[in-house]
Amino acid sequence: MPRPSRVADLPTPALLLDLDVLERNLARMAERARALGVALRPHVKTHKCLEIGRRQLAHGAAGITVATLAEAAAFAEGGFTDLTWAFPLVVGRIPEVIALARRATFRVVVDSDAALEALAPAARAAGVSVHAWLEVDTGHHRSGVDPAGPDALPLARRLAAEPGIVFDGLLTHAGQSYDAATRQARAAVAERERAGLVAFAAALRGAGVGVPALSVGSTPGMSAVERLDGVTEARPGNYAFHDFMQVAAGVCAPEDCAVSVLASVVSHQRGAPHAVVDAGALALSKDPGPHDPALARGLGPLLTGPAGPALDPRLAVAAVSQEHGIVRGPDAGDVAGRLPVGEKVRILPNHSCLTAALFDRYDVVRGERVVDAWKIWRAR
Amino acid sequence: MPRPSRVADLPTPALLLDLDVLERNLARMAERARALGVALRPHVKTHKCLEIGRRQLAHGAAGITVATLAEAAAFAEGGFTDLTWAFPLVVGRIPEVIALARRATFRVVVDSDAALEALAPAARAAGVSVHAWLEVDTGHHRSGVDPAGPDALPLARRLAAEPGIVFDGLLTHAGQSYDAATRQARAAVAERERAGLVAFAAALRGAGVGVPALSVGSTPGMSAVERLDGVTEARPGNYAFHDFMQVAAGVCAPEDCAVSVLASVVSHQRGAPHAVVDAGALALSKDPGPHDPALARGLGPLLTGPAGPALDPRLAVAAVSQEHGIVRGPDAGDVAGRLPVGEKVRILPNHSCLTAALFDRYDVVRGERVVDAWKIWRAR
Repeated sequence: MPRPSRVADLPTPALLLDLDVLERNLARMAERARALGVALRPHVKTHKCLEIGRRQLAHGAAGITVATLAEAAAFAEGGFTDLTWAFPLVVGRIPEVIALARRATFRVVVDSDAALEALAPAARAAGVSVHAWLEVDTGHHRSGVDPAGPDALPLARRLAAEPGIVFDGLLTHAGQSYDAATRQARAAVAERERAGLVAFAAALRGAGVGVPALSVGSTPGMSAVERLDGVTEARPGNYAFHDFMQVAAGVCAPEDCAVSVLASVVSHQRGAPHAVVDAGALALSKDPGPHDPALARGLGPLLTGPAGPALDPRLAVAAVSQEHGIVRGPDAGDVAGRLPVGEKVRILPNHSCLTAALFDRYDVVRGERVVDAWKIWRAR
Repeated sequence: MPRPSRVADLPTPALLLDLDVLERNLARMAERARALGVALRPHVKTHKCLEIGRRQLAHGAAGITVATLAEAAAFAEGGFTDLTWAFPLVVGRIPEVIALARRATFRVVVDSDAALEALAPAARAAGVSVHAWLEVDTGHHRSGVDPAGPDALPLARRLAAEPGIVFDGLLTHAGQSYDAATRQARAAVAERERAGLVAFAAALRGAGVGVPALSVGSTPGMSAVERLDGVTEARPGNYAFHDFMQVAAGVCAPEDCAVSVLASVVSHQRGAPHAVVDAGALALSKDPGPHDPALARGLGPLLTGPAGPALDPRLAVAAVSQEHGIVRGPDAGDVAGRLPVGEKVRILPNHSCLTAALFDRYDVVRGERVVDAWKIWRAR
């Protein structure tokens, strides 16, 4: 059926994307990267959407970052020519990497001899150049080589020397910035990320290993970092949308959140302190939201406000099952009368990246008008 | 690229479906329903897969249950002719309900005057008969009318009398069976579900309202219930696959779990107590698993055992980000040596329904052979 032109008429659940907020978020981060003197390589795992990626390029992005080969294939097919797969190379999928390297500048991430030893011969045999970053651990302790450990320098040297591999430089992700509770703490994490990467690059250069580029990045880090001297690019992703986690952490305000889930009240038991909406785990995800339980609002607060979105001070999705969302407030009276069957509500997701991956499209809106529908490339 | 014929060669992450286990689960539940004297209307939200639905019909299912209109459309298109949408009617989507009612016996669920007042005129105007169940709350307290409250009898009477509506009877879902920790507790929940529905049907019949059918069901309830006298059908879903939650609750054994996620080790930091695999929140979901924290194994335990799946006693996915899974054991030594980069592991998901909804296909396997690929209709 054709999509209606008014938000109020959309079938629910729907994922609303506020175009004005999106444009403002893209412009702000592009300006921030310019001010910090780094190129921007936005992480498209947040939106998985060609139209948004194209807007990011129009705002000056130097290329994009992807989390999966499915995202890489969709964006390469969509005309994107410079992609970093910011995930440790999956050695079983090297044939797909080779295929992507034939059609675009495709950059993979390596942090082990095993990955390099699988990749380099395959690239040489195929006669293609695969670009590779060395992932460095600057404090997240998830993946990446320890710059102070015994593996880092030899692996960098091998990457820089290996035929078939174009060594791009050093890449890191200070994911611990998501756990930092204040702007000051985020700035400190981002500075350690920067300084750690720059110091290791200096050590490599001192040892005769050329380091073309240094790539950092996360949305919380970019929101707070004061300087990025020595770094050449940043890879934030979430900033395009933000979400309740970013609001709770103080990274942005509710009106900076570009996506929300439109849902309908489908059931309300007489006198019950809850109403049921048609947005459950497969519309919101089960991301629990802010790490500090005192800041959590279940699976996400409701939004209110005709003059731009504001957090509902009381109502939130307290629980979900597969397709049911349970909206509740602190008092039984919060729901009664306000949420009759048929009423539509907007929910701010805890984690917009996971929410977007559950929908097939954005309903692109300006105020109360639906102005477009953009495909979400959620296939794996 | 063509799918390989050996499990070990599959690109990761992949969702493996063990055909022998699936067939055994389908046969057992079909036999259980026959023994209890009820028809089976399996909930296909667990698998969203036409091939599995067809096997459920072949085992004697009387029809299917869906959770969304997208599932309904996919299965109707696939030739299924009798579908219950076991979700409180979304009044904004009645045009799609009417369209489905033109091509199949389509049964919706109503628990409010508001829903009935939107549906009945639309059905009459379209000249179609829409079947409707009255949802009854037998203790879950999520949706459904309170059989002892003032709304239940008048709404049943209206449903039974309304032109354009075919009253199917009473439907309930004792979802609290998922919280019951023992077989005895599950049996007690299921008996209260049965008895509550049967008693209300008797009251309705006594008041002159015909009640054609009584529909109950959940996998934990069906695993434990001792009798279903007076009930006409059951709607379990998860039983086709099971998952770690069902294992932890004692509903089934690990070897009764039909789906697992095949993942690759992509990173391991020297000396670290964890390895990184390519199965994160978008391969496993963020379902936290068993409600009793003492039984939880993070986002799901690893599986071991060449002679059929067994839970790895130590290793589990302890944390996830969007595409990263962090595998850890209680001791730092659990990972070292055992999970080199490139090694493949199998993960038992906490909640198979949510995991399946994140993949596009099942890689259908028999032992170590890939015998088929079945589409998952995950579009919303």
